[in-house]
Amino acid sequence: MRESWVNYAERIGSDLHLELSAPGGKRAALIGALREAVRSGRLAPGTRLPPYRSLAADLGVARNTVADAYAELVAEGWLTARQGAGTHVAERTRPLHPAVHKKAPAPDPCARAPRHGRSPRHDLRQGTPDVSAFPRPAWLASYRRALSQAPNEVFGPGDPAGRPELRAALAAYLARARGVRTEPHRIVVCSGFAHALRLLFGGGGGNRDGGRQVLRGPLAVEAYGLPFHRELLAAEGVRTVPLPLDEHGALVDRLTRERAVLLTPAHQFPTGGPLHAERRAAVVDWARARGAVVLEDDYDGEFRYDRRPVGALQSLDPERVILIGSVSKSLSPAVRLGWMVLPERYVGDVLAAKGEREAWASVPDQLALADLIVSGSYDRHVRRMRQRYRGRRDRLVAALAERAPHIQVSGVAAGLHAVLRLPPGTERSAVEAAVRQGVALDGLAEFRHPDTDMAAHDGLVVGYATPSEHAYGAAVEALCGALAPGGTRVS
Amino acid sequence: MRESWVNYAERIGSDLHLELSAPGGKRAALIGALREAVRSGRLAPGTRLPPYRSLAADLGVARNTVADAYAELVAEGWLTARQGAGTHVAERTRPLHPAVHKKAPAPDPCARAPRHGRSPRHDLRQGTPDVSAFPRPAWLASYRRALSQAPNEVFGPGDPAGRPELRAALAAYLARARGVRTEPHRIVVCSGFAHALRLLFGGGGGNRDGGRQVLRGPLAVEAYGLPFHRELLAAEGVRTVPLPLDEHGALVDRLTRERAVLLTPAHQFPTGGPLHAERRAAVVDWARARGAVVLEDDYDGEFRYDRRPVGALQSLDPERVILIGSVSKSLSPAVRLGWMVLPERYVGDVLAAKGEREAWASVPDQLALADLIVSGSYDRHVRRMRQRYRGRRDRLVAALAERAPHIQVSGVAAGLHAVLRLPPGTERSAVEAAVRQGVALDGLAEFRHPDTDMAAHDGLVVGYATPSEHAYGAAVEALCGALAPGGTRVS
Repeated sequence: MRESWVNYAERIGSDLHLELSAPGGKRAALIGALREAVRSGRLAPGTRLPPYRSLAADLGVARNTVADAYAELVAEGWLTARQGAGTHVAERTRPLHPAVHKKAPAPDPCARAPRHGRSPRHDLRQGTPDVSAFPRPAWLASYRRALSQAPNEVFGPGDPAGRPELRAALAAYLARARGVRTEPHRIVVCSGFAHALRLLFGGGGGNRDGGRQVLRGPLAVEAYGLPFHRELLAAEGVRTVPLPLDEHGALVDRLTRERAVLLTPAHQFPTGGPLHAERRAAVVDWARARGAVVLEDDYDGEFRYDRRPVGALQSLDPERVILIGSVSKSLSPAVRLGWMVLPERYVGDVLAAKGEREAWASVPDQLALADLIVSGSYDRHVRRMRQRYRGRRDRLVAALAERAPHIQVSGVAAGLHAVLRLPPGTERSAVEAAVRQGVALDGLAEFRHPDTDMAAHDGLVVGYATPSEHAYGAAVEALCGALAPGGTRVS
Repeated sequence: MRESWVNYAERIGSDLHLELSAPGGKRAALIGALREAVRSGRLAPGTRLPPYRSLAADLGVARNTVADAYAELVAEGWLTARQGAGTHVAERTRPLHPAVHKKAPAPDPCARAPRHGRSPRHDLRQGTPDVSAFPRPAWLASYRRALSQAPNEVFGPGDPAGRPELRAALAAYLARARGVRTEPHRIVVCSGFAHALRLLFGGGGGNRDGGRQVLRGPLAVEAYGLPFHRELLAAEGVRTVPLPLDEHGALVDRLTRERAVLLTPAHQFPTGGPLHAERRAAVVDWARARGAVVLEDDYDGEFRYDRRPVGALQSLDPERVILIGSVSKSLSPAVRLGWMVLPERYVGDVLAAKGEREAWASVPDQLALADLIVSGSYDRHVRRMRQRYRGRRDRLVAALAERAPHIQVSGVAAGLHAVLRLPPGTERSAVEAAVRQGVALDGLAEFRHPDTDMAAHDGLVVGYATPSEHAYGAAVEALCGALAPGGTRVS
């Protein structure tokens, strides 16, 4: 029962989020949004509102803010409160003070519709960490400490390589967490993975005359991967050539004349396995023999749940592998920071592509991240999230084993998503069944390279990090309801 | 803190587990494993090792075993131990690949040499605000407030348009401070002026197929302007066509077949005058008649010292003018935030160029800036800096009037720099004289478009915002020493 309140609160919450970000204070915004929801009938007469705590948790506001908003709306007659019975939408809602509320704010033409039309009830799409877990106090403490202690020069034009504090912190962190072998001067800070690809292949905008690209295509990529990366590369004029995958990862022996290959060695995205040790060695040998380079997308390297850490491929040959990482999964995609760990010979070109000054990555954020790492808070956060995500994975696996035992779950030794293998030809109907249960997720087909000739796999990619902690159980329930034999509905 | 050590110890521990089961005793195995971790660079120089207790607990060995192993490795020189400071990896550990590690702390190849070789004693180059004046307490307060109150969703993937809080704050601010006429949904947040140019002309990397640029060249520009902008445009394949200048600004009646013109209407950069009212009207008429667009570089619009504020050209026709601004001059170039105020018809294309998610501008920084503006702190800071810069301008003008009365100072009604007019043919020697006095500054020639046929002006561009407050007097003294008749040296 409690679960469903929480879920309900989240639904109301996600409806209210946009309005809540309006200026003028959270309390006023919440009152306005709730009032509008009642007035428009979105919250029907008699509807019971979620408890303060649930709504507050989901909106990320203080419980008192919700309590105040409810009290105000009770006073205005929009809501009714009865001791012990909770707060309800009044049966006859008429505006007591018509002048009080403004016209509904016009919909923002810039606001993006969620990919599945409306905000889904249960969001199991991959790609986003649990946003409710952002370590606000630790980040704020690091930010304050870093900014208070920083010399004045940090507020001047920044070095495009990134702040030395951050590069030193990353070098040490990546060495111990990922086995990376590098030095601070070979790390270049950027805004994230997409920025790194642009710097490598787009020359920072200088691709017209062809004189400034660091790397050139064609680029071999895994046959399953993020469409966004392929599109970005295509926009830079870089052709991608798909490498087939099997249970040991990409078939790197198919590499021939490409100049570079982009891999996810620690945890193939999205299918989920690590690249086999022999192939790790083989791809580095290939790069050496052909004068080529391996791009290592270390997108979730911190989140490994078994006892066998898969270190970075980069350590096999720091002169042949470019490791690219970011805080998008470990911390938040809202903090626009990533890094490239470069072979010596590329450092100059990447810096030239980046420009004479730091034009991208916020310098205060760089300092804050450096402090977060050095102070141990980053490790602490990663450890906490690892436990949380591991718990979610276990819960997903257990629920499916019980409710949909025909489904094989794979790729779950690491990361923030699982792949549910499906019988051939059933993927589309499974996605649709999920949608009917209010679950948003993607099928494997979304990630398939259009040019690959490998046999298609049917499967669902379940991002188990996306829902907030209290909403996760209901999401798994709904997913099981969609996948259970006979399509049993969840009661 | 203990948490993080435990975590860290666990990570090191899991690296070491395998080796520890080797024959020969735990102590020897631990020593071997740690030595190898240091030797290979997996434990970087300077890394602090976990306390005995944490590592022992995680490895399941006696604390003394860890203590013995550390002691042994300290003796061998791999680790260092200082009373009360813990055990660290020695700074000079023997490299695995001599080619990778430098012998001594080699100079960082990423560190940029200051433009004049060494760091100048007196920096009067334009372009940077007084970095010592960054409003740290106000910024930190806004950052903390904004982040504490933000709903959880701000830590998810961001809307490429920018946070609604910031766009609303900017719309209101730009209306009252610059006379801009717009609405929040027509503002797109970006990383700064260069990013805006790339979004408009480079299509966010999609310029290969020519299908995604928002605007196309050739672009008319002022005959004097920032070389960086011309270079960036050239790299995007955009040809720039110089418009001659006179004392009333750009000769906009020379505009013909260009599709767009980039102007600095409030304060021509670098020569310093505002665009004459008739020309403001004329350029908008031209844009209307030709279906063209005016890019308004509002780089220092807040800093006007006379009593006649020059409002944004944008207000003359919000459908024909794109206004671009940033916090680089008003706050700091280290905070990577700028904005584009767009005609309705470009909003969709600019957002498409920016991508599906916010990949550039830090979302926490966006929230902080919104709070800074809404709370009034931004206005307060700008007011304070306006007074400070006006004081510096007055001091410069007074000093030159006394010490170098033959120099005409111009362009000083606004902004962060002045132009000292020089007799024809004397610019280079004046710059050199300044350098001899330890003063770094640029001559006007640096800013001249290579293709212009207008008569060259000799002059020095003096950025009076760059030095910190206490260093300014000496910088002006040194400059006067360089320019005084007879080249009098400052004692």
